[in-house]
Amino acid sequence: MEKEKFIIGIMTGTSVDSVDTALCRFYMESGSFRFDLLNYKEYEINSDIRKLIFRITSNKFTIKELSQLNFYLAYLFSDCSQGVCKEIGFDFKNVDLISIHGQTLWHNPIPEQFTDKFISSSLQLTSISALSAILKKEVIGDFRAADIALGGQGAPLVPIFDYYFLRDEKKDIVALNIGGIANITIIPKNCSSQNLIGFDTGPGNMLIDIAVSKYFNKKFDENGEIAKSGQLIEKLYKDLLRIDFIYQVPPKSTGREFFNYQLLNSMVNEDYLPNDVIRTITQFSAFSIAHNIKKYAPINSMIVVSGGGRMNSYLIDLLNTELIDYDLMKIDELNINGDAKEAICFAFLGYLYKMHLHGNINSISGATKEIILGVSANNI
Amino acid sequence: MEKEKFIIGIMTGTSVDSVDTALCRFYMESGSFRFDLLNYKEYEINSDIRKLIFRITSNKFTIKELSQLNFYLAYLFSDCSQGVCKEIGFDFKNVDLISIHGQTLWHNPIPEQFTDKFISSSLQLTSISALSAILKKEVIGDFRAADIALGGQGAPLVPIFDYYFLRDEKKDIVALNIGGIANITIIPKNCSSQNLIGFDTGPGNMLIDIAVSKYFNKKFDENGEIAKSGQLIEKLYKDLLRIDFIYQVPPKSTGREFFNYQLLNSMVNEDYLPNDVIRTITQFSAFSIAHNIKKYAPINSMIVVSGGGRMNSYLIDLLNTELIDYDLMKIDELNINGDAKEAICFAFLGYLYKMHLHGNINSISGATKEIILGVSANNI
Repeated sequence: MEKEKFIIGIMTGTSVDSVDTALCRFYMESGSFRFDLLNYKEYEINSDIRKLIFRITSNKFTIKELSQLNFYLAYLFSDCSQGVCKEIGFDFKNVDLISIHGQTLWHNPIPEQFTDKFISSSLQLTSISALSAILKKEVIGDFRAADIALGGQGAPLVPIFDYYFLRDEKKDIVALNIGGIANITIIPKNCSSQNLIGFDTGPGNMLIDIAVSKYFNKKFDENGEIAKSGQLIEKLYKDLLRIDFIYQVPPKSTGREFFNYQLLNSMVNEDYLPNDVIRTITQFSAFSIAHNIKKYAPINSMIVVSGGGRMNSYLIDLLNTELIDYDLMKIDELNINGDAKEAICFAFLGYLYKMHLHGNINSISGATKEIILGVSANNI
Repeated sequence: MEKEKFIIGIMTGTSVDSVDTALCRFYMESGSFRFDLLNYKEYEINSDIRKLIFRITSNKFTIKELSQLNFYLAYLFSDCSQGVCKEIGFDFKNVDLISIHGQTLWHNPIPEQFTDKFISSSLQLTSISALSAILKKEVIGDFRAADIALGGQGAPLVPIFDYYFLRDEKKDIVALNIGGIANITIIPKNCSSQNLIGFDTGPGNMLIDIAVSKYFNKKFDENGEIAKSGQLIEKLYKDLLRIDFIYQVPPKSTGREFFNYQLLNSMVNEDYLPNDVIRTITQFSAFSIAHNIKKYAPINSMIVVSGGGRMNSYLIDLLNTELIDYDLMKIDELNINGDAKEAICFAFLGYLYKMHLHGNINSISGATKEIILGVSANNI
């Protein structure tokens, strides 16, 4: 197989709910990238570590804790890497490299005065050198820093994957990922990478999950059943529609800094029924996604949905209603595991590094140029 | 020239007083490593950054400050890298790579319980990916993590340099570096790397500098003139001689955590005259170095002194008196700049990485094996 590499991609999101681990095989065929997903697994993060990560992002921590966490994550990712192989009897010796996103602790791509210089920065934690030494394998990570150093947002990084694996010669494509935040990559038919548009549309599951946790002590609204049983609260919906971010012109990105518990609490009151709140928030997520697609994506585009939100069938129903002039399918129908997509994407960024190919799309990130992303440790 | 590489080595110590920057040429000749130092320069660190680094090590900081500092240092080291070339009219295009130690913020090589695992760790800051993107050059750094992940101390790292550049076929050598802390590498004649012994002997300049700063508001005791003018305080000297670390069996390492302002203050009182305190502390530094050399190094060894302390002629006189059965010379007499030695050493660690050679000496660090040290970013 041409340029075949077995790569483990590891993704941990800002929600810190699991270590998403994908064992992939990448190769070239007729000049195109190809991959198979051999195994995918979501490993738990222990609650003390989860709490520490949230303490760090709330500035209640010591430098010792940060340093220890940096190495702890290497051991954790080592366990996940070996586990995802062992589960299917794949010999770990045959893995070529581990490619990791790392745990984001800070992301601020907008330059600010910092003593005598203007600095923007992003921080993803794990000692890739320690992980390499533990596993006796090459490890690649820290994919955002170089793009930020060139004036980019260091995000989103998924569009390069969308470009190579979803682009179609005859059909305009919108890759929609509904994670905590929802984001889209618009891939016009037969386009070059410089014609891509990609940005965050607003909340995906984040506000829904926060509300479901607050009112029902559940992790998420399974199949959207809570939302389905509620009524739209006109006042709350109007308040949500006033959120400026939805209408901002891309490039734009957002996160837990804005769409959080504080925002929800500032908008709800005790008169609102829980199911109605969930219904209204779900409708708002659907609206904000649909509004941005209608504004920026060609009519009749095929929308390819990934991320946990694709399993919220009520949210998908609402999207289908709003996006009557578009087609919508789950990415799984293209034989790409929709839960694993981000982990596969980071495995692919490791593959691009090994191929000496650029990983960012600077028309999306805003960086001055396209460059090789990532840092490599090969401590063997 | 065989395997010639132009490498900029950058070292910043825990005293955060300068960015030591060495432009070197490394090459092979008759199977041996060789180098020339083309330029060496100590760049200032602005006082706000210096204060922030001390705030971080005292746990008074935010995650944003840490992340911004990580990128700030990349811009600072970028300026230093370009400056050290420009000053001598060396074309920066001809630099092959930058090799950096990074700013140590935490170093704890002893495993401790950390939720469900035992973790030891070390943290050296700067985004090597950002530095690589800014300079359009390969950058190698983070040399300590892999050794620590294999159970080592991640320190000292200088012995591999001493081994390759100071080892002699006919003479036992002791490489003595008198920085804030003093450390030695004992290199028996014609030895293999596994026969090396290396450890910290105790304070070098650190206690002297602290006392000179306290009493005279000076940075250091130039030529040891203050010490020379004072008398030994018997009581203080006896108290110092009781410090257990001096007599501990190696491997051992120490730092600012112990030999600090608090220690000095706990031992002096207002009756002591400032010059006498400096004299007594200087004598103690000399004693602790000499005691450890006499205990572990073969008689008649040649002691090769590097570090700022070699310029304290009174300290050197005291060492010569204590070490009557040894020869003592400054490393500069071997055509190695004694101020630049550590920065050259980190340039050499980058060279070893490029040659796919091991960087640690595990008989000294305590790691389970010798491995390639460092992480590489080549974001071009």
